[in-house]
Amino acid sequence: MSSRFERLEARTVFEGAIVDVREGRFRHEDGEEVTRQWVVHPGSVGVVAHDGEHVWLVRQPREATGDPDLLELPAGKLDEDGESPLDCARRELAEEIGKAADDWEHLTTYLSSAGFTDEECHLYLATGLREEPGHEIEHERIDVEPHPLSQLDATIAGCRDAKTLIGLLLLRDRLR
Amino acid sequence: MSSRFERLEARTVFEGAIVDVREGRFRHEDGEEVTRQWVVHPGSVGVVAHDGEHVWLVRQPREATGDPDLLELPAGKLDEDGESPLDCARRELAEEIGKAADDWEHLTTYLSSAGFTDEECHLYLATGLREEPGHEIEHERIDVEPHPLSQLDATIAGCRDAKTLIGLLLLRDRLR
Repeated sequence: MSSRFERLEARTVFEGAIVDVREGRFRHEDGEEVTRQWVVHPGSVGVVAHDGEHVWLVRQPREATGDPDLLELPAGKLDEDGESPLDCARRELAEEIGKAADDWEHLTTYLSSAGFTDEECHLYLATGLREEPGHEIEHERIDVEPHPLSQLDATIAGCRDAKTLIGLLLLRDRLR
Repeated sequence: MSSRFERLEARTVFEGAIVDVREGRFRHEDGEEVTRQWVVHPGSVGVVAHDGEHVWLVRQPREATGDPDLLELPAGKLDEDGESPLDCARRELAEEIGKAADDWEHLTTYLSSAGFTDEECHLYLATGLREEPGHEIEHERIDVEPHPLSQLDATIAGCRDAKTLIGLLLLRDRLR
């Protein structure tokens, strides 16, 4: 049964380079108390950026998953103090793709893996794209890869990354 | 740039109740060596189970994310030795929904959050549903919630969970 619960106490049991792990005690409505551990994440954003002809994706190596060239939306972590999700999305689009966008629309906000982490990922649709002149593309190992919207089905079929799959499935719905 | 890399060494830096954290050194093709931490996860499954009229979902409290009643696919972790993803999917459908399915189809396998965890989630479509008589529904706080396929758009609009969003978006494509 769904159940309201209150958090009784929580402490950090691991402080890592990217994420921390916390452990807490929770009391459910029926009185039962449970202990849970979860990975604390600052949240993330992903950007579905298209110009009417192409959707702008990136490929990069992901050491955690062993992928030499995972296909992804331009994306990043909310790791600067006080930065809003939308500001983070604008920054990542500029840093990873070298573009700005005139029009931004919130597509969805989802939980990456609710059983073990509090990570929320905010997805935006960015259109009205233009070059961001003079902007240095930040990361060394990111390949920018425009994919034709006319071949979106094939791009989706090749997606292995959650945010990219969700973003492109929602884009396909919009374009229908 | 996409880049092949080799893992030079890795060690567990945190052993937790649900997940561990590992730290490794990686050498990229260009010779650069980097250190990365990532959350080790055994993998998971989610089941899109429908009978032509309803898709069978669950609601449960998720302490990690603070949700009292998150809407999800029947799902679970690959945590029993040697269990295949499909066997895990069959088990979770029986345990959470009390049903078996005659027909199973692999929908997709995706990475939950490639920047910090190796979790892969395997999604299956289950049809030809029948009651699994005498099966005890295992978890106390799970509500079974059939959602009419005729209102799938509204169900998708209310989804906050990655596997559920991906599974229902793929289901909607199939039903079109």
